[in-house]
Amino acid sequence: MKKLINDPDSYLLQGLRGFGRAHADLVRVDLDQRFIVRSEPPKPGKVTLVSGGGSGHEPLHGGFVGYGMLDAACPGEVFTSPTPDPIVAATQAVNAGAGVVHIVKNYTGDVMNFQIAAELAADEGIQVETVLVDDDVAVEDSLYTAGRRGTGAAVLVEKIAGACAEAGGTLADVVTVGKRVAAQSRSFGVALTSCTTPAAGRPTFEIGPDEMEFGVGIHGEPGRRRETIRPASEIVREMADAILADLNPAGPRALAFVNGLGGTPLGELYLVYDELVQVLDGRGIEIVRSLVGSYVTSLDMAGASITLLSLDDELLAWWDAPVQTPALRWGR
Amino acid sequence: MKKLINDPDSYLLQGLRGFGRAHADLVRVDLDQRFIVRSEPPKPGKVTLVSGGGSGHEPLHGGFVGYGMLDAACPGEVFTSPTPDPIVAATQAVNAGAGVVHIVKNYTGDVMNFQIAAELAADEGIQVETVLVDDDVAVEDSLYTAGRRGTGAAVLVEKIAGACAEAGGTLADVVTVGKRVAAQSRSFGVALTSCTTPAAGRPTFEIGPDEMEFGVGIHGEPGRRRETIRPASEIVREMADAILADLNPAGPRALAFVNGLGGTPLGELYLVYDELVQVLDGRGIEIVRSLVGSYVTSLDMAGASITLLSLDDELLAWWDAPVQTPALRWGR
Repeated sequence: MKKLINDPDSYLLQGLRGFGRAHADLVRVDLDQRFIVRSEPPKPGKVTLVSGGGSGHEPLHGGFVGYGMLDAACPGEVFTSPTPDPIVAATQAVNAGAGVVHIVKNYTGDVMNFQIAAELAADEGIQVETVLVDDDVAVEDSLYTAGRRGTGAAVLVEKIAGACAEAGGTLADVVTVGKRVAAQSRSFGVALTSCTTPAAGRPTFEIGPDEMEFGVGIHGEPGRRRETIRPASEIVREMADAILADLNPAGPRALAFVNGLGGTPLGELYLVYDELVQVLDGRGIEIVRSLVGSYVTSLDMAGASITLLSLDDELLAWWDAPVQTPALRWGR
Repeated sequence: MKKLINDPDSYLLQGLRGFGRAHADLVRVDLDQRFIVRSEPPKPGKVTLVSGGGSGHEPLHGGFVGYGMLDAACPGEVFTSPTPDPIVAATQAVNAGAGVVHIVKNYTGDVMNFQIAAELAADEGIQVETVLVDDDVAVEDSLYTAGRRGTGAAVLVEKIAGACAEAGGTLADVVTVGKRVAAQSRSFGVALTSCTTPAAGRPTFEIGPDEMEFGVGIHGEPGRRRETIRPASEIVREMADAILADLNPAGPRALAFVNGLGGTPLGELYLVYDELVQVLDGRGIEIVRSLVGSYVTSLDMAGASITLLSLDDELLAWWDAPVQTPALRWGR
């Protein structure tokens, strides 16, 4: 294994400390309780948003803590759900009296631990609502999931629900719009290589020099099939078709999120985006907003995912609203 | 070779088309003449900035075209300098009558082609000045370079000189501050894996499963030595020492840029940043600004580079000024 680390045990905490040091203007990292919050506490009466999940998907979720997006994030061990304790602590830390929204990707461990944390927070008198993200159409059930896995749509839910909360939305407003984003988003990913976790020190799965995993999960979970790699035009068309077979677009406008899994050059992601524009144009869908880059990664895995969000005027306005986080910034 | 492309010949142009489509609010890509400009033409009397170089280092340079940074970028073929023609065309396209600054990384091909282009533009009555970026202290001369190679400091020169130009700086102002950033910046990189260019289809160099290239160039040029990988703490200390042996800091304040070469997870980059903070603290240098991410890449190469810029009040103010480009955005 070759990684720029000291040892697998200290990898996570030292990376978090560096993250906190690099972005001290925006966030504060509580290394003891293991959560990340904005550097400034929320205004009283603001609905606040907490997300989290296994580490190794950076910048998700910590990179999205800041103005207009998350109030806190709970990073678990690599590819492992955070336990309830840090989720409760983060929920208490950002509670501003108007309710806290948990944004949870659909993995069994995350769902269970956020559920326990929500109950413990409720015992403390904090009103918690949950938005479940289950956008990955590749497989019905997976290694760590019952139902669709949660992937790229997490970024879109956090951005749009975060904008609604920043603008003074009530708990019901924020939950409703967050659930709507989750319902109107679908994703599909492909891997060209495996990732290697620091603890294992070897690739999570074996894959041949000409093979790809079609429908891979963000922890290296199997997809629909293993096959010989093909031209990007064919891969993207089939990814888009899989998404559109499951998504019932609310209208002709979409946000397209082309996401790198960690080891894929930006030039390839823009090429995938170019193919996607053409495929969707042929299906009567216009991409009116886009996000291209490595935002939901799987450590060093080469590959990409596509997420489509069917847009309406409300979602579009929240997407365009100002955001100021380590990984996404605009308009302010 | 496994890449998300259609074929090696169309890779570059299709990626550029996708880039233009994804960022049509900020940039326009001229595929025929092969350059990228801002979507809005410069105001008359603005000093304008043009950079460029081989492709494969994305988001450099096209990702830095926009308000507060570059006016145009010229992407060559992968790892190959742009020819003079697109540089002349870009220089003419953005000339607003107050002079054009070419920001050139120190590679023999880039230096020659930008020089020819500057002379051709001068024949058209355009005043062109050049800022050379030669920050990489790893080797004295290299495969494609006489003198120090140009790497991460290009981003810092483009940001700071771009801010000066945006604020109405004269040609002399912009060139002076740009040269000062180049003079006060030094870099050092390490590779854990090779990159693979689409045209070659196989790794640029062979490297063992436990080896790293200490002092690598951004095209895979050899560094100081090949050695067994060590803990990040030792690697970062030696990188910082190599930089500080060559840089004569103007004061105690520095900007630290920890850059991923393409295949390295963000978590490792933040860990490297954490080590760097500690090393510099022991050397009496305070990091007052930072940039952590994959901004000057070498396709899919795993590895990282560190760039230090010795800061003064003027450079700090220009760094903090608003910027609005595909790859860097803040403050506006």
